[in-house]
Amino acid sequence: MAKGGAKTWYFPDGYLPEKNSKGCMEAHEALMLFNTSEKDADVFIDVYFSDRDPVKDISVKVGAERVISLRLDHPEDLAGLKIPPLTQYALRIRSNINIVAQFGRLDTTQDNMAYYGCIGHSE
Amino acid sequence: MAKGGAKTWYFPDGYLPEKNSKGCMEAHEALMLFNTSEKDADVFIDVYFSDRDPVKDISVKVGAERVISLRLDHPEDLAGLKIPPLTQYALRIRSNINIVAQFGRLDTTQDNMAYYGCIGHSE
Amino acid sequence: MAKGGAKTWYFPDGYLPEKNSKGCMEAHEALMLFNTSEKDADVFIDVYFSDRDPVKDISVKVGAERVISLRLDHPEDLAGLKIPPLTQYALRIRSNINIVAQFGRLDTTQDNMAYYGCIGHSE
Amino acid sequence: MAKGGAKTWYFPDGYLPEKNSKGCMEAHEALMLFNTSEKDADVFIDVYFSDRDPVKDISVKVGAERVISLRLDHPEDLAGLKIPPLTQYALRIRSNINIVAQFGRLDTTQDNMAYYGCIGHSE
Repeated sequence: MAKGGAKTWYFPDGYLPEKNSKGCMEAHEALMLFNTSEKDADVFIDVYFSDRDPVKDISVKVGAERVISLRLDHPEDLAGLKIPPLTQYALRIRSNINIVAQFGRLDTTQDNMAYYGCIGHSE
Repeated sequence: MAKGGAKTWYFPDGYLPEKNSKGCMEAHEALMLFNTSEKDADVFIDVYFSDRDPVKDISVKVGAERVISLRLDHPEDLAGLKIPPLTQYALRIRSNINIVAQFGRLDTTQDNMAYYGCIGHSE
Repeated sequence: MAKGGAKTWYFPDGYLPEKNSKGCMEAHEALMLFNTSEKDADVFIDVYFSDRDPVKDISVKVGAERVISLRLDHPEDLAGLKIPPLTQYALRIRSNINIVAQFGRLDTTQDNMAYYGCIGHSE
Repeated sequence: MAKGGAKTWYFPDGYLPEKNSKGCMEAHEALMLFNTSEKDADVFIDVYFSDRDPVKDISVKVGAERVISLRLDHPEDLAGLKIPPLTQYALRIRSNINIVAQFGRLDTTQDNMAYYGCIGHSE
């Protein structure tokens, strides 16, 4: 039977790129949370930094059989937390049921577009 | 002994880029299914969205000792399902025997070319 | 104790890009094999396609405590096998001792440079 | 309970790009070490090459509930080790407690920007 992922996910490399108004796509980072179960998932996001204490327990919900995309440069997606640009941060995701989590960055600092994306380390 | 992968694979971050006729490569997303066993694999693809119910049980076959590439922007590769562009979606892949699955995006929205690719989360 | 990786690795998405003489970097794909043990590793590479039988048992050696990079567009790195460009292929790597394997593509089809890289699925 | 990652991490594909003074971002590679535990982590970095013996036991510390980013082109981040550019290398990371490790490359060789990033293979 499919387990539907895992309850804990880690992403060490968050770093919000600078906004660049010239391109037609906006630089950003995003977190995708994928819930294949028939129950809603209650998820907590913890944000870690290099030189200060983490901000923990940002609460989000992922509906049954839904995927959501959270913008990490949008405080309204993180219960008001504003992650500063050009600053190293990391994410730990904890869910009450199994989910699958992925991280993506779109950087347009030099007008051209560059991606990096990865599925997290899970437990 | 090599197991040949796993029976279930997850890809949270699907997002078909806009087509851009100026470049020499066409923006797209693709799903690679790799079967190293000596039997054909019967695979079901389930497509999940943010705001509506999933489309499940799209059936594909992967021959013994073959790899196939499905275009996620080609309905004919998905039993007629048309995934809308610029819309978050996620994939669950279920196979009757062990396979290995990978996802790739080629984005040419800004004329330049950007890749992201990953091997899925497996169970 | 560190195990040093695994004996079997899978890479579903190989696709050699076209050469483009205009940029200063040459489009290619490469396979990195990393052996942290104190013994040499005897490795076999199996190359799979969409519409024909695989080519198996290409033999390479990775020295003790060494990493090697094989060019997948160089037949001399693959015991003479010429993988055709713009053709889907996949790799299975088998080693007599634990190693770690990674795949990378550098595409310069449109003059700009695009990367994708991933550590393989392992068993 | 969340385990906080693993004690050993592997990255087969290190290759420092050439510096290119024309873009506004500097080409580099970086290693992110993420420690969610309430204890500091004592970490050793081992650097492997294709044609010479590895340099082992480069010592770094990651504070409790912190993420750090080490620049692999900065000898001061590696206890003085200078990794030569355009040379294949690989990393093994060993920690006394569980952490999560990720690798990233930013290449600007052709003025445009290209990323590749991955979470390591762990044990």
